[in-house]
Amino acid sequence: MELTLQAPLDMHLHLRDGEMLENIANASTHTFSGAIVMPNLVPPVSSKEEVTAYKKRIRHAIGNEDFTPYMTLFFKPSYDKTFLENVKEEITAIKLYPAGITTNSEGGVSGFDVEELRPALEAMSDLNIPLCVHGETNGFVMDREAEFVHIYEKLATAFPKLKIIMEHITTKESVAALDKFENLYATITIHHLLITLDDVAGGMLQPHLFCKPIAKRPQDREALLKVALEAHPKVMFGSDSAPHPKHAKENCGCAAGVFTAPIALQLLAELFEKHHALENLQAFISGNATRIYGVSPLKKTVILEKKPFKVPSDYNGVVPMFANEEIAYRIKEVKLG
Amino acid sequence: MELTLQAPLDMHLHLRDGEMLENIANASTHTFSGAIVMPNLVPPVSSKEEVTAYKKRIRHAIGNEDFTPYMTLFFKPSYDKTFLENVKEEITAIKLYPAGITTNSEGGVSGFDVEELRPALEAMSDLNIPLCVHGETNGFVMDREAEFVHIYEKLATAFPKLKIIMEHITTKESVAALDKFENLYATITIHHLLITLDDVAGGMLQPHLFCKPIAKRPQDREALLKVALEAHPKVMFGSDSAPHPKHAKENCGCAAGVFTAPIALQLLAELFEKHHALENLQAFISGNATRIYGVSPLKKTVILEKKPFKVPSDYNGVVPMFANEEIAYRIKEVKLG
Repeated sequence: MELTLQAPLDMHLHLRDGEMLENIANASTHTFSGAIVMPNLVPPVSSKEEVTAYKKRIRHAIGNEDFTPYMTLFFKPSYDKTFLENVKEEITAIKLYPAGITTNSEGGVSGFDVEELRPALEAMSDLNIPLCVHGETNGFVMDREAEFVHIYEKLATAFPKLKIIMEHITTKESVAALDKFENLYATITIHHLLITLDDVAGGMLQPHLFCKPIAKRPQDREALLKVALEAHPKVMFGSDSAPHPKHAKENCGCAAGVFTAPIALQLLAELFEKHHALENLQAFISGNATRIYGVSPLKKTVILEKKPFKVPSDYNGVVPMFANEEIAYRIKEVKLG
Repeated sequence: MELTLQAPLDMHLHLRDGEMLENIANASTHTFSGAIVMPNLVPPVSSKEEVTAYKKRIRHAIGNEDFTPYMTLFFKPSYDKTFLENVKEEITAIKLYPAGITTNSEGGVSGFDVEELRPALEAMSDLNIPLCVHGETNGFVMDREAEFVHIYEKLATAFPKLKIIMEHITTKESVAALDKFENLYATITIHHLLITLDDVAGGMLQPHLFCKPIAKRPQDREALLKVALEAHPKVMFGSDSAPHPKHAKENCGCAAGVFTAPIALQLLAELFEKHHALENLQAFISGNATRIYGVSPLKKTVILEKKPFKVPSDYNGVVPMFANEEIAYRIKEVKLG
């Protein structure tokens, strides 16, 4: 069986920088037309010059023009309209991190005082720049996202024209918020559609499945599956593919992140087929994002075939999800046009 | 400041076998008069001959008589009264594992049919042999223990004279069950008094804090702390100290278990002092267990002093809790009598 996807988009991707960027850029982008590239480098990407320089490094690492990096800025409350008007042409969105909540987020937002955020967020709203949010409090690990929903609601109410993307949602509470506020959208990863905390810590501890937000309960996964499989119009695929060197995952004090980009489409095909929802995959993987972000992705056709594929043990030292395991689909062809 | 404890008992200890037993026996037993030794070897300890042989290996590994291993059998529904009468003199309790729920528990009990268990459990009840239970279902990792409480209640009701020890309890639901059934008792570890899931997976992933049952929510820890600090008469200290080689903890697919025995008393002293409950430590660490099990422990005096102690990086290749960190108490003297 073959499956053809047009212009797949990954609306949440970590490409890192330096040697890691060089190591994983091609594997992470080959099957996608484009991706929203997250700005949590050290230091974070927070000026026009940094965005353009990072974009150039990404293009250099990929080595061709067959992929569009949709660039983002690391949100700071100090951004004003003049700054944003100037940087707008270089970015597709701005990413907000609560301070200290995930990899390289130390410079993020503490407290969510609407008035403090108003100048920056109103300017973004006026300029139609979407706000991507890592929505977790610093509460108990299983509650962090559900606790953050009231902040989403507060922001959605205070800035009704601002497009707010709830990134990598993992709970039924976030899913429920989607239908309550017109301006709330969401990305969902492939791993949060496949695993729960049981897969991370129910048997042996599995560092390669450890991520933030941590995988939640079976009921949460069910809620995510429902909106992904029906390609709910406010939901987009975002891998949150987050490479770390093998030693940073397998040692004591393992870093958070699952590396999925090279196998994301293959896994999605298998999952959507299993649930008899293949007809919705194109919308989940591209159509919804194109409409929500108003982008015109590079024309790229990806043909998958249903043939067992053994996932490599690593991609240049980065261990992917399902390393050394067999998955049902493989990439047959990727072509421009 | 000095603190003197008489005849400390560890009512739940893993001493393993072979090379691991030789490596950790002294560190695990030095500060205790005795301990309930768990039988989940490969194959499990399930005959009189195996108990006596294992006891002999433990004595050999320790190399002195300054410690009493209270031996246990691995529960099988096939045990009958004749068998139990014969083995009774060699054991202090019998440990029941649900099948496949933790390290080396594959041969455990599947389903908890009272009538199937009746012959063995009535014989144990008649012979006054306590039943120690690892109380977890095979459900979602955060719910397994709370889900098991109804099985505890079923067993406690069906066998009202059988002493049932809920081992290493981690939830407020298990704490609540203590006061509902006269014949339910519990052990509590030091690590479950100190950590929650946040410590295991809230920041970086910490394999050395990964154990079964997994550490739960702050409210659960509060419930455990309350009954431990007041030395609730049905609650005993049991370290569940569970050594694994360093490589089995720090690699992919990390084994469950925290190694605490060598520092358990020191940590308990610090914790009880912090909560102004030092007057209850003797009961928690020895008095309650002596009464519940009806044992007369070896006379041993342990003097702790409040002086910073740097926990070693490992004990013969086994990484303890708080490795390389400083704790507030150290052992000043251990003497018989």
